[in-house]
Amino acid sequence: MVTDQVGTARAPGRPRSEKAEKAIIEATIDMIAEGATVAELSIEAVASRAGVGKTTIYRRWSGKEDLVLDALTSLKAPLPDLDAPTVRENVLRYLSVMQHESHSRRTRCIMNIALSESERFPHLAERFREIAIRPRREALRSVIQRGVASGELRHDTDIEVAMAALTGAMLFFTKWPGNDDPLPEDLAERIADQVLTGLRP
Amino acid sequence: MVTDQVGTARAPGRPRSEKAEKAIIEATIDMIAEGATVAELSIEAVASRAGVGKTTIYRRWSGKEDLVLDALTSLKAPLPDLDAPTVRENVLRYLSVMQHESHSRRTRCIMNIALSESERFPHLAERFREIAIRPRREALRSVIQRGVASGELRHDTDIEVAMAALTGAMLFFTKWPGNDDPLPEDLAERIADQVLTGLRP
Repeated sequence: MVTDQVGTARAPGRPRSEKAEKAIIEATIDMIAEGATVAELSIEAVASRAGVGKTTIYRRWSGKEDLVLDALTSLKAPLPDLDAPTVRENVLRYLSVMQHESHSRRTRCIMNIALSESERFPHLAERFREIAIRPRREALRSVIQRGVASGELRHDTDIEVAMAALTGAMLFFTKWPGNDDPLPEDLAERIADQVLTGLRP
Repeated sequence: MVTDQVGTARAPGRPRSEKAEKAIIEATIDMIAEGATVAELSIEAVASRAGVGKTTIYRRWSGKEDLVLDALTSLKAPLPDLDAPTVRENVLRYLSVMQHESHSRRTRCIMNIALSESERFPHLAERFREIAIRPRREALRSVIQRGVASGELRHDTDIEVAMAALTGAMLFFTKWPGNDDPLPEDLAERIADQVLTGLRP
């Protein structure tokens, strides 16, 4: 991938276009974080907030769903390395990223939108799953499968339920209504230890 | 509690008012299930859908949030009896209700709204938690506490994490995006068995 470097000659106009794209993505994120639903969001409002013309947006994105998808995916923290020697360490890394993400009001808002609007914007929801959700799920599945293969976890581990218990427990604390207390600092450890206890030979 | 019985004399107008209330609640549920957000929902639109005047709505509800709250709570299945002799049986009953509720598109929509709009309608979200979420959570906590007290579960069980793993695993399958396959019929059993294995002495 070619990236701009200090001192490199650039095509005229390139930096301005990148700056505009960034402003457009930021404006979209801000508006969703402030409570706008995808249905309510308009290209016109985003353009006005970003200080660009509508045509600048349509040059880069085919429409609202396309733009929102880019905005959503830009907020996902990258996958952590899940190549530690033990299942526990990999699970801790995974859960810690989830817990860390939940601190951001922006991320919370945007995940909520991703969750709530799948009925209205099925294409957006499907692409969001492909880009942002499935790769993470595959990475966690692989951690558990490797643990079963190495004998660290029981050979009859119900892999889908194990993933659901680990991820779901963290979601329950971070995303589900009714948890108003600050998250315990050792939450990832507590979840990993309790759930993995049931999976050991 | 006094209830209407067949043959009982009723105050004139009472049945009509009950019918109108039911139509108003149904209209609200339908519109949310079709994708309307709380922000978008208007008393005027609900009145028109229910075939009543706006004043009929305002006679019973102080406003939109009040009406939506009644609509949401009317959809929650009642708490199952959680007085079976074993933790496993009680957990199964609890998880089965959660799984059953998720089959309804209406319920899914409405739970999504309850989740997504807590930032915009904090009062609505708070009352919804009080009425619909906390009593269930307390009931499950009590099941686990009784299991610890009776020795069926380990004395060092992390009760909050156990609740999160059980409930969160079911939510992960029923509410989280990315699970498009039909739910396995024995899902409640699989979750109960795997999570409880880690909690036994």
